Amino acid sequence: NTKLKIFSLNSNQELAEEIAKEVGMPLGKSSVTHFSDGEIQINIEESIRGCDVFIVQSTSQPVNENLMELLIMVDAVKRASARTVNVVIPYYGYARQDRKARSREPITAKLVANLLETAGATRVVVLDLHAPQIQGFFDILIDHLVAVPLISDYFLNDSGIDLENVIIVSPDHGGVTRARKMADRLKAPIAIIDKRRPRPNVAEVMNIIGNVEGKTAIIIDDIIDTAGTISIAASALVESGAKEVYACCTHPVLSGPAVGRIDDSVIKELIITNSIQLPEEKKSPKIKQLSVAKLLAETIVRVYEQKSVSTLFD
Amino acid sequence: NTKLKIFSLNSNQELAEEIAKEVGMPLGKSSVTHFSDGEIQINIEESIRGCDVFIVQSTSQPVNENLMELLIMVDAVKRASARTVNVVIPYYGYARQDRKARSREPITAKLVANLLETAGATRVVVLDLHAPQIQGFFDILIDHLVAVPLISDYFLNDSGIDLENVIIVSPDHGGVTRARKMADRLKAPIAIIDKRRPRPNVAEVMNIIGNVEGKTAIIIDDIIDTAGTISIAASALVESGAKEVYACCTHPVLSGPAVGRIDDSVIKELIITNSIQLPEEKKSPKIKQLSVAKLLAETIVRVYEQKSVSTLFD
Ligand SMILES: Nc1ncnc2c1ncn2[C@@H]1O[C@H](COP(=O)(O)O)[C@@H](O)[C@H]1O
Ligand SMILES: Nc1ncnc2c1ncn2[C@@H]1O[C@H](COP(=O)(O)O)[C@@H](O)[C@H]1O
Repeated sequence: NTKLKIFSLNSNQELAEEIAKEVGMPLGKSSVTHFSDGEIQINIEESIRGCDVFIVQSTSQPVNENLMELLIMVDAVKRASARTVNVVIPYYGYARQDRKARSREPITAKLVANLLETAGATRVVVLDLHAPQIQGFFDILIDHLVAVPLISDYFLNDSGIDLENVIIVSPDHGGVTRARKMADRLKAPIAIIDKRRPRPNVAEVMNIIGNVEGKTAIIIDDIIDTAGTISIAASALVESGAKEVYACCTHPVLSGPAVGRIDDSVIKELIITNSIQLPEEKKSPKIKQLSVAKLLAETIVRVYEQKSVSTLFD
Repeated sequence: NTKLKIFSLNSNQELAEEIAKEVGMPLGKSSVTHFSDGEIQINIEESIRGCDVFIVQSTSQPVNENLMELLIMVDAVKRASARTVNVVIPYYGYARQDRKARSREPITAKLVANLLETAGATRVVVLDLHAPQIQGFFDILIDHLVAVPLISDYFLNDSGIDLENVIIVSPDHGGVTRARKMADRLKAPIAIIDKRRPRPNVAEVMNIIGNVEGKTAIIIDDIIDTAGTISIAASALVESGAKEVYACCTHPVLSGPAVGRIDDSVIKELIITNSIQLPEEKKSPKIKQLSVAKLLAETIVRVYEQKSVSTLFD
């Protein structure tokens, strides 16, 4: 009869608190502080001997700091004789560095997978990896959750928009599978934004495949980072006759000029999840955050109870 | 006939430039920048196929950033088909977390060794590890250099102090071996500072083992971090009759109040190496920096030419 323990690190304590509440237990007692020279000091303040330990941490900005916190915590938990060391990574950073696109590039998404294994993680739970192939970067067990059902449910039940008139838009060819899944749930057609650069050093042209005339367009992506593409895509949709444009994504990276761009864009509402905790200055009336706490809590309990989590994957 | 290539990352570019100059070749062309969201982007801008690559990087503050730069660079170099991937780490961060001193602590110095191996390093060159046992944390080849000869030569040849009247002081029991080595080179006696806390919550008492009366005391340590201990030790030496006090160390971590404490202390001069690059605001007329570039350059060439480096170790 092993015990379940959930610990939070610093990237996303609000989400970790919510998860613990959903599971119905307090978070494990621990602290992450820094020595005077910036080195991370971790204290686990309760016994975890023989326990199934879950550590909640997104490798969001500051990514290197958050990743090192996670690796050092995994090391500490392992050495404290936990039975299993499960890392719950709602946002998996460095996921876009998942292949050599140019000569002599690193494949940092694979490196991070190896580092987690080396530190002693025995299982990872992740949400909407930038590429599903990253699952194969791990030799340890991995559960890959998706946020499409959560986001779709919001549009179905809480958005107040006319569902008869919706079209789901993939912002690029890589995202069509995700858009297709959402379209199935909303019983809506899909459109695809087809970017191309006519000549080098000439601005990209956004061509829309599909008819968005008079429709409520919902653009879905996995990550919104600087929000450049999505803002331009929204304008292109309006120019092609869309009545209004919503956008949604799982991971609100929202770096640099992102929030200003969203605010200034024709996007009516941006729906995101709390896989990444938004600092106050990135909050905006246009941005609505849905919680993945229930999804992650349910996954943690099912993993702990050794029940199938496959129903949560789609 | 493999080629030698030396690359620098961001922690200590001045030292890397100096090393390359000593070796007589330019640094390899590469850049380390950040994406908008803070993720590290590395570009290696020349072929390194089949080469013996040396990467110079201290894991000094910001330690997590510098460590991740190093790990990602090692991954990139490995994947670019280098023959060997040698990491030169003048200052090895997290070295003080080298054992479980309390329950459920991580052993981050070992974790870092494992991470470097996992990333693909085939050899490490380090300088004055906080504990020599950390050598055993690596399964890959390791060369462990020491700075005592360099620092001793400074006192012997350039300091202008009366060598007849010197006593070498170890600031704690852990440092006696290092002090002994320096004392041998300077043909001087040694003293040891014996700290103890008479009762809990009562200030430490510094008792000096050895006679420092009328002597020029030289305190030697591996790391000076917040400079609390060394400043108090210097005062204790003066109170015990020392004529003047010098201090020296290999790694000038100098975090928090360190520089102010040194400036305000009775220490006449602090001799450090450039294993850690000092930012402008940490420079002080009292602090003299010696360069380890020659030592590291010689080591790199000897490793590359497969010659013994053991003569450099003592
Ligand atoms: N943090 C990042 N921010 C922006 N671009 C990135 C980032 N990490 C990797 N990339 C680049 O994004 C490309 C992969 O993105 P994608 O084509 O959407 O899979 C690669 O060519 C990378 O060079
Ligand atoms: N970066 C750091 N700054 C200050 N103390 C540290 C640091 N890292 C580890 N320590 C502590 O220093 C002790 C080891 O130092 P030492 O006894 O000199 O080997 C351990 O008990 C650690 O908790």
